Formats: sequence, structure tokens, C-alpha cells
Amino acid sequence: MSVESKCVDTIRVLSAEAVEKAKSGHPGMCMSAAPMGYELFADIMRYSHKNPKWDNRDRFILSAGHGSMLLYSLLHMFGYNLPMEEIKNFRQLGSRTPGHPEYGTTDGVETSTGPLGQGLANGVGFAIAEAHLAATFNRPGYPIVDHYTYVLCGDGCLEEGLSYEACSLAGTLKLGKLILVYDNNDITIEGDIHTTFDENIAGRFLAQGWQVLRVPDGNNLGAFRQAVERAKEDTTRPSIIICKTVIGYGSPLAGSADCHGAPIGEKNLQKLKDNLGWTYPPFTVPTEVVEHCKKIADEKCAFEDEWNKLFASYRENFPELANLYERYMGRNYSPDLKKLCNEMEFTKSEATRVAGGNIINRLAEIYPNLMSGSADLSPSTKTGIVGGGNFTAENRLGRNIQFGIREHAMSAICNGIQLHGGLKILCSTFFSFVDYMKGGIRMSGLMNIPVVYVMTHDSIGVGEDGPTHQPMEQLINLRSIPNVKVFRPADGKETLAAYISAFSESYPTVIVESRQNLPQYATSGIEAMKGGYVLQDSKGKPDVMLIASGSEVELCTEAKKTLEGKGIKTRVVSLCCMELFERQPENYRESVLPSSVKARVCVEAGSYYSWQPYCKDYGEMICMKSFGVSAPAKVAFEHFGFTAENVVESALKAIKNAKKNK
Amino acid sequence: MSVESKCVDTIRVLSAEAVEKAKSGHPGMCMSAAPMGYELFADIMRYSHKNPKWDNRDRFILSAGHGSMLLYSLLHMFGYNLPMEEIKNFRQLGSRTPGHPEYGTTDGVETSTGPLGQGLANGVGFAIAEAHLAATFNRPGYPIVDHYTYVLCGDGCLEEGLSYEACSLAGTLKLGKLILVYDNNDITIEGDIHTTFDENIAGRFLAQGWQVLRVPDGNNLGAFRQAVERAKEDTTRPSIIICKTVIGYGSPLAGSADCHGAPIGEKNLQKLKDNLGWTYPPFTVPTEVVEHCKKIADEKCAFEDEWNKLFASYRENFPELANLYERYMGRNYSPDLKKLCNEMEFTKSEATRVAGGNIINRLAEIYPNLMSGSADLSPSTKTGIVGGGNFTAENRLGRNIQFGIREHAMSAICNGIQLHGGLKILCSTFFSFVDYMKGGIRMSGLMNIPVVYVMTHDSIGVGEDGPTHQPMEQLINLRSIPNVKVFRPADGKETLAAYISAFSESYPTVIVESRQNLPQYATSGIEAMKGGYVLQDSKGKPDVMLIASGSEVELCTEAKKTLEGKGIKTRVVSLCCMELFERQPENYRESVLPSSVKARVCVEAGSYYSWQPYCKDYGEMICMKSFGVSAPAKVAFEHFGFTAENVVESALKAIKNAKKNK
Repeated sequence: MSVESKCVDTIRVLSAEAVEKAKSGHPGMCMSAAPMGYELFADIMRYSHKNPKWDNRDRFILSAGHGSMLLYSLLHMFGYNLPMEEIKNFRQLGSRTPGHPEYGTTDGVETSTGPLGQGLANGVGFAIAEAHLAATFNRPGYPIVDHYTYVLCGDGCLEEGLSYEACSLAGTLKLGKLILVYDNNDITIEGDIHTTFDENIAGRFLAQGWQVLRVPDGNNLGAFRQAVERAKEDTTRPSIIICKTVIGYGSPLAGSADCHGAPIGEKNLQKLKDNLGWTYPPFTVPTEVVEHCKKIADEKCAFEDEWNKLFASYRENFPELANLYERYMGRNYSPDLKKLCNEMEFTKSEATRVAGGNIINRLAEIYPNLMSGSADLSPSTKTGIVGGGNFTAENRLGRNIQFGIREHAMSAICNGIQLHGGLKILCSTFFSFVDYMKGGIRMSGLMNIPVVYVMTHDSIGVGEDGPTHQPMEQLINLRSIPNVKVFRPADGKETLAAYISAFSESYPTVIVESRQNLPQYATSGIEAMKGGYVLQDSKGKPDVMLIASGSEVELCTEAKKTLEGKGIKTRVVSLCCMELFERQPENYRESVLPSSVKARVCVEAGSYYSWQPYCKDYGEMICMKSFGVSAPAKVAFEHFGFTAENVVESALKAIKNAKKNK
Repeated sequence: MSVESKCVDTIRVLSAEAVEKAKSGHPGMCMSAAPMGYELFADIMRYSHKNPKWDNRDRFILSAGHGSMLLYSLLHMFGYNLPMEEIKNFRQLGSRTPGHPEYGTTDGVETSTGPLGQGLANGVGFAIAEAHLAATFNRPGYPIVDHYTYVLCGDGCLEEGLSYEACSLAGTLKLGKLILVYDNNDITIEGDIHTTFDENIAGRFLAQGWQVLRVPDGNNLGAFRQAVERAKEDTTRPSIIICKTVIGYGSPLAGSADCHGAPIGEKNLQKLKDNLGWTYPPFTVPTEVVEHCKKIADEKCAFEDEWNKLFASYRENFPELANLYERYMGRNYSPDLKKLCNEMEFTKSEATRVAGGNIINRLAEIYPNLMSGSADLSPSTKTGIVGGGNFTAENRLGRNIQFGIREHAMSAICNGIQLHGGLKILCSTFFSFVDYMKGGIRMSGLMNIPVVYVMTHDSIGVGEDGPTHQPMEQLINLRSIPNVKVFRPADGKETLAAYISAFSESYPTVIVESRQNLPQYATSGIEAMKGGYVLQDSKGKPDVMLIASGSEVELCTEAKKTLEGKGIKTRVVSLCCMELFERQPENYRESVLPSSVKARVCVEAGSYYSWQPYCKDYGEMICMKSFGVSAPAKVAFEHFGFTAENVVESALKAIKNAKKNK
């Protein structure tokens, strides 16, 4: 038996053993895809286990994240910092080997995967980032940015709509350095895939503008290597390599759904070992495999050394570009964004989406590495970088990405662009369509990466398009995702604060903007970065507090006038980002919303669910409890009680309640 | 000019006029797709404007819902109850002509559309329903169920991942009576579609097992008619008819994105009329058009008369089948589901997904028209109808639908199956994957139709698969959708109550079930249909109330034992469906959760956002504030404080707080 075959079998046995010990996991695809995994790490990819974050490494994404033990086996064998103790701790609390690969937890894991299709779409983002950075920085003889993105997926990823969206865009954009390895084992949880998925995969990818390659026997390492070579040769099309494999290869459960998502059992594990002629104790990597892989891995570190030399010479010949490169990579560059508060003026009544558009274009000057995309709505969301050009097959320097009407892929691709490194990314669509991209935004939150989502047309203010296009529960849906910060600014200065926050911090931010014009407040400002602040105060302790976000702040400031006219001391609080407000010290929060003031009115044209913590037991809420209506915006607002008059009435009621319950 | 051409032009002018008057709308595709719309309503479809709900009508779905005026024009012209006053009231509050077509608002609107791809996927559901009902009821010479489903879509629908998922399944299932009319006008909001969507549509649909037909000139009525004939002839494949059209045809903005989503303007409207030789006053349907369409529409009513005769004869020859048919259609059949409470026993500790599986199979006996589907997870969600067979191209009688790994399409297809009439439908997947199907569930809520969603593996109880697979914010995400009821039952009897509620009511229900075993409570029961009830009470007024749902109820009943041991009177409330609890009369709600009892602990392994209204200002919450972890379930629960000990501690704290603040 060749040492290569032994390496492949090591992956199979180690994966099955770890799953068995954890009493949980997915051994089947670790065993079917082991040869491709080995070949990629041994003979194909460039990387440096000593510096897993080396800028110009080839990227590997396990889109079929349930096969995590395949990746952990490879990382362990090829020198990454993942000792056998971690393999033995597979799927245990605090281990570096969680059930699905988690970004930030394990060296060599480029992105968190598990929800099917996400990794593949991330890969399209990696390839876009590579193409844009290469066009920006490479000069003849200096391929500073020059790597491939390899994605390994199974049938599951290819059934998800997300994968079609992402691959359709990849084909349109001719992302020639994206290589998809398809572990075609024909088995899913409910059994034979053809009863549910009788698609001509080759025809599908050809229709989407891909090169299609085949490896009829997934165990044939040479054939796979040759296919990758051909994939690389075609620089104008992304490539899919369809590898025919057998799930659970080597075990008695081979070819059956039974080995997809559960341990194969001690007996079958022994039979697997017998079939492979495996005689080692559990959790053993045979010495010859250790040495073979170590030699390969150590030799690969030379790629980074060479690149470092190349970059040194590049720095000499193109000092400005080299500096710019470092700036792109986020090294030695932290601009003072708060100075924008003095620089930018917001005087006339305008929609926050319009303010946002102006801010984005100012940020695009400060961050030359900012790309901005939209799901076919940039004329409405105002997120285009003026003069930035479109990123296309012909113009890799373009800074605007036309994602097409593909919201889900947009979010997952932006995650990939962000994870690649070197770029800042924001994307936009109408807020109601955020439903289609929840899967991707959740991954932004889970990985806690600073993708910026700009969601315009943020309420029943959408008007005539009606309830399908009017967000209602979307605010609470996003606020409830951990790590995600949701801003709903009330005017231009608050919008600026939202963008400054989004561009300064390391978490994902959603900026929710109005379609309709809103007034500018004299007293708004950078304070909005705290998530909530007193916009207009009363003289002395307030009798009532009006708390709102976005367009509904206007109703509160209008109501304040009437209430003050009645001698009622009224405070208006703009709560533009609840998540950031909750992070403030208690004394700050108490100063904005003193618990002694029980009379409160909370106003937001979104689901009431967000507001109970601020409304408290005696407060009043003016929020949405149903879907919207098709009508002009003003009529729709009135229909649901979003008027200054109703805020006044509710304030009087709240004051009464508070007194009664004192 | 032929009268047919005049009819087509009437649609164009009327649509443009209505959009102009509303100062809002999408005239472009009404004008490009007018010929196909006319031809379908005039020469192709069978329907009865006198009875728009006639069982055996051909179905027409405007998946490109923004072209609503196309549909409204057709309904007006072909005799439906949609007078010109309504056309003039396009997009106004309370009109029957909302911005996007709304199910239940307008006769002849088969489904609400607007979010792209939904209507097309609904159409796949219609075709599945038709095929299943036809196989069930048709007998030689008696094609009782025998109609086509026509879907009209634009580029937007075809870019969405949802459409690929739905069409892939349609091809696999060989749904020959589904006919997709593609208004291929090459324009989207950001302009020429090829910069973002350079896909070979014909190749794509061939790869997915469809027949592909072309109409090179969308204005050629005869060519379109012939294409539809060929589509009908191929009974083994769904068909797409690619119609090359010009957006905004006839207006000076023809072929430009400018006429997609905004009024074309008074001047261009006049030029449109000039170009078409249109000399009538605004909102006029020329007399010859009125007469021509009325004649056609009235003649079409004969189809229903014939069908009624056929059914009368069918009833004579197949009386049992005819009765069964009526039962399927929901006429004369309302079984007493509550008797199941006496019939079914839940004695041993088991997962609520297991209880759910048993209940589904009992319901499948009561409702022979129940179909149950899963997104490749029925072995885990336990939702399969045992002995029901799979619905496939070969077995149309199968009652289990294998949706494949296509969550979004599953939800939208189930909406279609439900809307078709004649069937009850439930579908299942893991709860964390609900993110992918939010778009479809929202439409269930918006249309308020009784699709049943079964979501298992409902919390960090998922264990080792880790945070990608552990729901956290999903409960609040669904609870916040209007009309949707979310049940999270604590044991078998509560699970039964959830299913009885879901099958008795007209709204969508999500039943969220545990992966892990849960105890059975002596005092649980049908009371759970109220959404919340006292599961275990104290003797006398409680000192503290422990409020929980699902698996966390067990922690509360355990904690109660300890607390009562300390002399603390403890009530345990199971709040299994907040939305239904909120519908109960105030005195009932007050009896379960007396406002005088301030000491409360709310426990749920989901986002804390749901619980503030029950926790109140002085209560304690044990909920999730972050993503989960990869670890065995028990370890994960302990890690996040979901233990009886922590409930006890929190109860003591709540009692203290309540006293302090009295």
C-alpha cells in the first residue's frame, strides 16, 4: 500500500474513531471525500501551517460542514495547531473541534459552516475578493494576490437555492479561480438522492457558465489531481469537479444513509479497520503518515517565504502600492471617523437612505478598500459608490457589486468577502427582503464579523407596495440575533453615527433606513453611537418619556410640543440601537431612562416585541401588531395610529396609569 | 386592428393609467406581458367568473406580483367582480386592488405574491395537489380533477434561489401540468440583466428535467397559443415557455428600467396612447373589447356546468368516492379531534418529536387528505406517514413528500398545496433551518392559511452539532409574525393539544418539538390549547410563579419540589403558545398569571426577547442571550444555567425583589 493510500485511510479511520468516541457526528462523507481532502492538502494547495493566516494562502472551505472530522484530520496531519487531544475531544465543550467547523476557534478553518450552501457562497465571496485585490495590487512579475479558493461540498449544498444563486453569480462574473469539489456520493438522510434531486448537475453548471470536470472514481488521486490542473488552466470560468464517491467508503455501511449522520458503531468500525488492513491502536496516525505529511507541510511553508521575498521586492519597486496593500489589510490604518461629524452637514429634510448614500460615498474615499453591493436595488437603497464602477468579468477594479436578485447569496458572499481579508463590504436591499437572507446574517453574527447591511424602506412607510413589502417583525428578528447590532436612525446625524459605529467595530451591523423624508434634529449627534440618548429633554424631571426609533421620533418631538403646552414635562429619547444601549454602564442607561419615571410611551412602526423592556409594566406602546396595508404611506401611518395626536393621548394615559400604580 | 390586439392594448393602457393615478406601481411588465395574459384568459384557461372558486378551474398565478395591474385588468375585463371603481382605487387603503395581489382580497387571486419566487413555488404546490387529487379521484371517463397550473414570472423570480429549488423538485416529480410562462424582458431595476444574470435559461430548465419552449416574439398571440398546446402535450415534464418581450412595450420608455417600478409620467402615457392609436378617455375599456371579453367569459362558465354534470354522474357511479371528495374539499366534515385526548396515551418519557410522530399518524387516519413532507429529515423529525408511501413521479397516491434539502421551497410549496384546496399539509425540518424558510412562513401568516410546520431539535438540546444547528432567536422570530401561532409543548399531551389546535383552526401553526426525552405530566392536557395554563399549583396564593415552555417546564417542576420544601408556595405555568394565551379573556389570563404575584421566573432555552411581557419588571429570566455551544445536550444546558438549581436560586431572588419593591 502506498503511503498516500495510507494517509487517506488515516483520515477515514481517525474520523470514524472520533465520531464513535463522541457518540455523535457524521462519518459518512469524511470517508467518501478523504482522497480529495488529502490530495488538496498534500499536492495542490499552498499554505503555511506556521502562519495559517498568511495573506496569499489558497483557501479551503468545507461547505459540507457536517464532515468536520475530515477537516480536523487534515489539519492535524498537516501540521496545524490541532493536537490529538483535540481530536479526542471532538464535539465537547470548549474543544477546538466543535461539531461543525467554527471560524475563530480552530486554525485553518476559514469560515463557519454547517447550514448547507453557506460555505459555497462564502467561497464565491473569497474569489471576488481575490479577483478585486489582484486587479488592484498585482503588477507584471508581482502576483502579490494570487491564490485559488477550493470549496468541498456534497449533494446537500447543491440542493439549497443558495448554491444556485451563488454559482449563477460566480459564472456571470467568470470567477476562474474558484474550484468546487463535489463529493457526489448520491446519499442523503432520506436515502437515494435521485428520488428528490434528479438534476443533471453537469448541465446545470454549464448553463451557469462553469467548466465541468469529472472524476469517475473519487479514490483515484491522480485523476483528481489532473482535474484540478484543468480547472486551473481555464481562467475564465469557475470549475466544478464532479467526483463520484461512496459514502462511508470502507465500512460495512458504505453506500447507505445509515453512515451519514451517526457513529457507525464499534463493530462496523472494527470491520472498517479490517477492510483497510488497519492494525493500529485507536487514535493513531501511523509513523510513516506522520512523517510523510510533516515533510509536505514543512516544505509548503516555503511558499510563504517566497511570497515574503516577493513582497519585499514589491515594496521597493512600488512603495505606495505596498503601503496601500498594508492599509487594505487593516495594518497601520485606523482613521478617525468621528471627524466626519464636523465635516458632514445634514440640513434639509431627507430620507435616511439618502443621508446613508452620502455617508457611504464619503466613507468610500476614506476606505479605498470598501466595496458596496446590492440585490438589484442600489438606485433605491442609494448605496452605490459613485464613480466606483461595477465589479464585472471585464472590470475587476469595480467597487460596486451587482448581486442580482439574490438576497441570500448576497449575505453569504459578503461574509466570504469579509472573511477573505483586505476589504470592507456593505450590501443593501429593501428591509422586507431581509427574510430571504436571514441565514447569511445569522452566520455574520455567529462569526461576529463586521459585514454592514443597509436595509432601506424600513416600515409601513413603504406605502403602496403593501404588506409583502412592508417590514413589521423584521426589526425584532434581527435584534434577537446575538452579536448583530441594529441601528434605526432618526435623521442624518444619527445615520452618520450608525455608519461610524459600523465601520469602527468588529461586529456585524444592520442599518435600517427610511424611504420617506425625515426632519433633522438640532440636538441629535454622535451620542447616537451609545445606542440611546436624550434627544429633547424637559426642564426638570420629566413627567413622561417618549421613546422611539427612526421615523417615529418625529411623532414624539411633535407630541412633546403639545404636551409641554399642557404643562407636562416631556423627555424624548431616541433609542436608535437597543443592543448598544444595553452595553452602556448602568448609570448611563439610568440617566437616559430613569426607572423612577414610570410614565413612558414607546413608538416604533415595527413589532411590539422589541419594546417591553423599555415600556415597562406601566408604559404604553404604539407599535405594529399586524401586517401592514397597501396605501399611501401617510394613510398607512394614520391607519395604525402612528400620529402625534395618538402619542399625546397615550402619554396622558401612561401618566394616569403611573399615578394610579404608584 | 383586430379585437384581440385591442384587448391587449386595453391591458397596457389601463395598467399604465392606474399606476399613473396611484402615482405608484410597476407598469413595465404589465405592458410586456399583456399578450400572454390576454391569451391565457381568452383562449387557454378554463374558469368560471361566476364561481371563481370552482374546484376544477385552471389556476393562474402572477408570480411577478409587482405586475398586479396586469392581473386586475384581466379580472376586470373577463367578468370577475372587480369594477372600474376598484381599478381607479389601485393601491388605496381598503381597495380590492392592493399594490401586490392579496389572497382573500380579490376574486381570482389564487395566492398573494410580491416577494419574488414565492408564486412560482406556490404553483409547484398547486401542481402537486392536482396530481395527488387526480390520482385519488379520477376514474376512466371521469376526470374529476383535471386542470393546469399557469405561472407567469419575470427575470426576478428566476434569479431567486427559491425558484431553482422549486423547479428542481417539479422536474424530479415530472409535474407535467405545470406551465411556466416566462416574461423574458431582460430588464431589472439596476438595468440590463446580463451583467448580473448571464445564465442559459433553456439549459438550466433542461438540466432540471423541464420541457423548454420558445416564443421569439411575445406579441405573437398564435405562437404563444401553440406553445401552450405543446406544453400540454408533454404530460411527463413541466414546461417553461420563454417569451421574448419588451418591457414597457408601446411607451417611449420601452426597453428601459425606467418603466419597471414607477409611473411612466403623463407625457409618456399620452405618447403610449398615440403609439397605440388609443383615443378613449381615461379608464375606458372600449365597447368592442367589453363585448368580446364578456362573450368569452360567459362561454367559459359552461366548463363549470359540464363539470357539475360530470360530477353528478360520478356521484351516481362512485358514491363513496364522491363523498370522499366532498370530505377532502372540507365540505360536511369536521371530526371531533378532542376525543383523541381520551384515546391516545403518553406514559413513558419521550421526546415531543416522537409524540408528534404518533399523533401525525393518528391524524393521517382521520384525515385521508393529509400529506406530510420533510426537507430530507423525516427519519429525525418523525413526521412520516407510515405506510403512506412517497409522492413520486410514479406514485401520485403517495402521501409523504420528499422535498429534498430545500427548506424555502418546502414552505412556499406547502402554501400552494394548502391554497389549492382539497388537502391538508404539514412539513418538517430542524428548527434552526427555519431561517431558510422564513420567506414562506411569512406568506402563510400574511394569507392566514393553516399550513402546519413541525420544527424539531428545538434548542441547545440539539447538543453536539453546535451553534449552527441550535436554534436561539428562532422562537421570537416566528412568534413575531402576525397570525402565526407557535406551540412549544412540554410533553405528549401538550403536543396533542398543539396538533388539535393546528388541525382545527384556520391559521398557520408552528409546532416546535424536542430532540431529547421529556417527562409526562399528570396534570397536563387539552387546557394547553388555551396557550397557557397552571400545570402545577400551590396550596393557596403562590409566593412565586415559574413560567416556562417545552423542555424547560421540567426544570420548573423540579424546582417547585425544592421550593415547596422550603415552604415557598410555587405555581408552575406552562406557556406553550403565547399567541393563543394572549387571545384568552382577561379574567382567564389573570387567573393563570395574577398580576398581584410579582415574583416570577421565566425559563426558556431561547431568546429572552419573548419573555419580558410575562416576566414583568420584577421577575427573573433564564433565557438565551448568546449562541449555543457544541457539547452534549446536558452539558450545554448546564453551561447556560438551565438547571433546577438555578431556577430555585432565581425564584428566591425574584421573591426578594418583589418584596423590596412592594
